[in-house]
Amino acid sequence: MPDSQMHLAAFITAGPGRPGGWRYPGSVPGWLSARYYQDIARTLEDARFDLAFFADILSVPDRFGGSTDSQLRNGALGSMRIDPLHVLSSMGAVTSHLGLAATVSTTYAQPFTVARSFASLDHLTDGRAAWNVVTSFQESEARNFNLDEQFSRNQRYERADEFLEVAGKLWDSWEDDALVLDTETPLFADPDRVHAINHAGEWFTVQGPLNVPRPPQGYPVVIQAGASTKGKDFAARWSDVIFCSHASLESAKDFYTEIKERATAHGRDPGSIKILPSIAPVVGATHAIAQQTFDALFELVPPLGGLSTLAYHLDVDLSTFPLDERLPDVEVPGVEGHYREVREITERDGLTLRELGKQYGGRAEGGFIGTATEVADGLEHWFTEGACDGFMVQAPYQPGGFEDFTRTVVPELQKRGLFRDEYEGNTLRENLGLPRPEPGEWANRISTQKAVQ
Amino acid sequence: MPDSQMHLAAFITAGPGRPGGWRYPGSVPGWLSARYYQDIARTLEDARFDLAFFADILSVPDRFGGSTDSQLRNGALGSMRIDPLHVLSSMGAVTSHLGLAATVSTTYAQPFTVARSFASLDHLTDGRAAWNVVTSFQESEARNFNLDEQFSRNQRYERADEFLEVAGKLWDSWEDDALVLDTETPLFADPDRVHAINHAGEWFTVQGPLNVPRPPQGYPVVIQAGASTKGKDFAARWSDVIFCSHASLESAKDFYTEIKERATAHGRDPGSIKILPSIAPVVGATHAIAQQTFDALFELVPPLGGLSTLAYHLDVDLSTFPLDERLPDVEVPGVEGHYREVREITERDGLTLRELGKQYGGRAEGGFIGTATEVADGLEHWFTEGACDGFMVQAPYQPGGFEDFTRTVVPELQKRGLFRDEYEGNTLRENLGLPRPEPGEWANRISTQKAVQ
Repeated sequence: MPDSQMHLAAFITAGPGRPGGWRYPGSVPGWLSARYYQDIARTLEDARFDLAFFADILSVPDRFGGSTDSQLRNGALGSMRIDPLHVLSSMGAVTSHLGLAATVSTTYAQPFTVARSFASLDHLTDGRAAWNVVTSFQESEARNFNLDEQFSRNQRYERADEFLEVAGKLWDSWEDDALVLDTETPLFADPDRVHAINHAGEWFTVQGPLNVPRPPQGYPVVIQAGASTKGKDFAARWSDVIFCSHASLESAKDFYTEIKERATAHGRDPGSIKILPSIAPVVGATHAIAQQTFDALFELVPPLGGLSTLAYHLDVDLSTFPLDERLPDVEVPGVEGHYREVREITERDGLTLRELGKQYGGRAEGGFIGTATEVADGLEHWFTEGACDGFMVQAPYQPGGFEDFTRTVVPELQKRGLFRDEYEGNTLRENLGLPRPEPGEWANRISTQKAVQ
Repeated sequence: MPDSQMHLAAFITAGPGRPGGWRYPGSVPGWLSARYYQDIARTLEDARFDLAFFADILSVPDRFGGSTDSQLRNGALGSMRIDPLHVLSSMGAVTSHLGLAATVSTTYAQPFTVARSFASLDHLTDGRAAWNVVTSFQESEARNFNLDEQFSRNQRYERADEFLEVAGKLWDSWEDDALVLDTETPLFADPDRVHAINHAGEWFTVQGPLNVPRPPQGYPVVIQAGASTKGKDFAARWSDVIFCSHASLESAKDFYTEIKERATAHGRDPGSIKILPSIAPVVGATHAIAQQTFDALFELVPPLGGLSTLAYHLDVDLSTFPLDERLPDVEVPGVEGHYREVREITERDGLTLRELGKQYGGRAEGGFIGTATEVADGLEHWFTEGACDGFMVQAPYQPGGFEDFTRTVVPELQKRGLFRDEYEGNTLRENLGLPRPEPGEWANRISTQKAVQ
């Protein structure tokens, strides 16, 4: 059964954010400052957002003409990104309920390191950590990590599966009551309740135990954005939260239905996966002001900034196609969901590649442009039509876009009973309405699935 | 020329800390809470400490009898450690001048990840990040990272040398003025001032550039604790700060002289390396109170907690020797400095192995037990005798030990003009009296050294 209220996450970039947004009057170039993120965190928590979410990438992408120039020059999405893990700890220090999600790649890290990092963050924030699991698909990332070329998609997902399996074992390696703290005996931790994991697999050999007690949430919340068939299956197996990108309500609904079915096929309660489409609402005191705001923002999007970002999202060198013609059908090794969206836009609006670059950079995902009432109408429609369990909200410019949304749209949603007035719980899982996993839950899930296959 | 004032760092464990300390009345078991570390950070910054330093380890050590039991049961040093990087960001959020140092191993991480993490922390804290470089030497750590046995010491140091070389190149990959932020042109970052590094070495192949601008400090402060010949050489080449452990003033003086000579041999200004011996002062209103406090703390040290920690520090399975006899001469693959200290103690005090375990766990490094005046006398003596540039201060129990020291000993040092009343600068480098490295400084240092060899 769907939730009666939607969940809201903020999609934040620890860098210049949406293409052109950094050029907008009132945009604050504070991406290197802790204060900048802490201010956003306070804004989101005051509005009772479920979580703040940070995308990430491990290179300055050079997928457009083999050069980083168009990314750097235009302040495009991949131009600069500081480590989101540090940002989360900084935000956690000034908040008490806001969930804190960062992207970490399973392809270029080790499970002991990542399991420990999120377990530590979960302890330090009293159960607010979330991990967006990505497998990475940029050659430029592989080349920063000792590889001439990246692993195949199949290999990356196999590695990711095993990575999560190991992470789960490590989080379970301390039983929930292992830390005794009896100063008399003494018995700090009970050795009978802390276990080596002795994992020996295809990709990883890890003895364990972790040197951190079981996280407050059991496992941190797991987020995924799998849009390929492989990715959707992975997401349905592991995720608590899925985010996605859709050019239309219909496409969002199809995706929603498919994922919930896949979850059921994996033996999971479909209600235990929250699906949050990414939206980029532009809100104004009147519809005209909102539209003009969108137009002004759109005007600032450098076409090559958007295009070089699309190039790395699709993992296709778009510099090889004529700028004044439509993008032909191409083989997309990158994000299939973005390609699906781009094909939909290109065909609907008849865009040249240059126009597509601007459109891709400046589009208002979901098309929510208007007054708070109008935007709330749109969100309510998607939510009640069964297209989502809530939204991943991007700000057209930072931090003002979040301030506009929380000041005007959130109260409207609250008035309609569509969004919480107060946090329901303390941990992120509690606020997302997700149960705390028992030790061994992932191990059971894996063995059940293996038995089914 | 030595500095006229000493530098003070706090040696903190993101876990139960000194053996037995967690059992002491008034010890706060807050190792999993951000507030706990933030309170310590405020205490240290109010006292004008240079930096907070976190040791780390990537396993629960099982070097004593192949079991983690004695570590876990006794709350020994390796029993539990949360990720210090998150702790630093949390502490940075409530302070403005305190330096923030964490241990990260070059053996089980990748240079792109680590360079980015410290660059990000340095930005978020306006130039307060420091990296304690370790090569790791526990088999139990190797077994958490896909290895049956660890690399040889030579290999680990070769890897560490190349790791730092790559990190330096990545920090230099954005020129200091690469971020232009011209919203009109637009020119976010100047592509002519952001460079691929194209590193191809024995251990690492890294294309670059980093996706983070050059850190405020140029390079984060580098800390090292090399005690082996190999380690001392490594430390003299790379370190801004060296910490060490000595049972006597004489041994500290010898080490100090040797390191400064090695630095000179590496073409460096010996004043650009700050040497901070680790001390564990116990201070009281009267000498008798201090001594009784020490005795009470010592009483709480479980011998097997100290011994299992010594086992992993030396990387020797001490469970194979009789507890009621003296430790015979052994081959020490681990920390030579600790072994030197242990031999000195064993011979001086005629200790059995069991007594040594208790002594190793509970010793007051440096022997500073007394009133604030007496402790300050001792520190002044070491400092003016040329044994150090300051101290790495451990708290016999946390957080009270830091409160005692900062409330009583620091004012006494300040009164004598031996410690600052106000921070000299904003960044950690400024407060340590270290110049901000120009881009290419490490590359130059490496090529100079290669030419000399």
